[in-house]
Amino acid sequence: MKSLTVEDLDAWNDSRKRARFINCLSGIKSAILVGTSNAQGVDNLAIFSSIFHLGADPSLMGMIVRPDVSPRHTLQNLIERKTYSLNLLPYDLRAQGHQTSARYPSDESEFETCGFSVERIRDLKVPFVKESQVKWLMELIRIVDIPENNTHMVIGRVVEVFYPEEILRDDGSLDLAATAPCLVTGLDSYHSVGKGIRYEYAKPGKKPQRLE
Amino acid sequence: MKSLTVEDLDAWNDSRKRARFINCLSGIKSAILVGTSNAQGVDNLAIFSSIFHLGADPSLMGMIVRPDVSPRHTLQNLIERKTYSLNLLPYDLRAQGHQTSARYPSDESEFETCGFSVERIRDLKVPFVKESQVKWLMELIRIVDIPENNTHMVIGRVVEVFYPEEILRDDGSLDLAATAPCLVTGLDSYHSVGKGIRYEYAKPGKKPQRLE
Repeated sequence: MKSLTVEDLDAWNDSRKRARFINCLSGIKSAILVGTSNAQGVDNLAIFSSIFHLGADPSLMGMIVRPDVSPRHTLQNLIERKTYSLNLLPYDLRAQGHQTSARYPSDESEFETCGFSVERIRDLKVPFVKESQVKWLMELIRIVDIPENNTHMVIGRVVEVFYPEEILRDDGSLDLAATAPCLVTGLDSYHSVGKGIRYEYAKPGKKPQRLE
Repeated sequence: MKSLTVEDLDAWNDSRKRARFINCLSGIKSAILVGTSNAQGVDNLAIFSSIFHLGADPSLMGMIVRPDVSPRHTLQNLIERKTYSLNLLPYDLRAQGHQTSARYPSDESEFETCGFSVERIRDLKVPFVKESQVKWLMELIRIVDIPENNTHMVIGRVVEVFYPEEILRDDGSLDLAATAPCLVTGLDSYHSVGKGIRYEYAKPGKKPQRLE
């Protein structure tokens, strides 16, 4: 087992190498495409991996937006429009998803440029990704500034969820793995996910029991 | 494609079913074991899936702690001790990891009870999980209260990282998938992860290029 302290990383004298290391550390996460529109109606699509559950009731999710990366358009748009879509990236479309992280100008839509189709749902004011099997509409609640590194935590509320009927189980859970979603490590490594194994609600004094 | 609004979920009249649905939605995430000790020296181990990257310089990570679930001991301990360990759960030990979510009393260590070995590293004041191949020491920076649902975002700083030598690539990234870590959907579904496919830094006007 090797070890590296943060001081060791500083000694690398290569901020990108250091960033790759720390970015990988937080583990393997879902790659989620964030869809927004700007005031001129230009759609924007950006890949995020720092989207997380904040609570079920109210149905809240958090998303970290960094100041120094291209998804800033996402932040501007969602502040203006108060709404955004979250779309699970299909594993088959990992290369296209990665391409949305390039720094496109604000008057160019990553949908067409990177190879995704815009899906308009009723009169909802955000673009969805047609190729995503699981996607949902978010409403901006509040933005928490994190002064330690000038990032922002966007707190949003889940408003409406779109999914294939067969992945909703009777107990309310979703079999996301059945839709072959894409996972990501760090900034550039994309992964498939295995079928899940479920366990019953854990109780002290009882061995873990498989559910299915 | 089916759709459900938050009002539809409310109409289920089953808060657990609703919680399962929303918990699944944020996607598939890494299962991370959080190790702490209390003032009496009793070790605590709890499984989390809401741990995320906040920034590389300084090396910050966030973690959401909910008020109504068992990892509250984790919150008390890390406030008292200002330090905690994060340990990637191996896929082989998914059942044991799930079992740490049971509500054990504060004078019982989940390490022994659930089948993990405590690893003490030098004079560091937190227990690590011996069976975890990738683990790191965190220092508490600050806790952000989220009044919308009484959760807390714990902001911590990565201090020192322990990993198998062979997973560190020359460019600073870590091949986490090579250590067979465990992923989780919702509250109870555990998954393996496929080998990663990497792409070069994305630029406008250039097709995504595979790195390896």
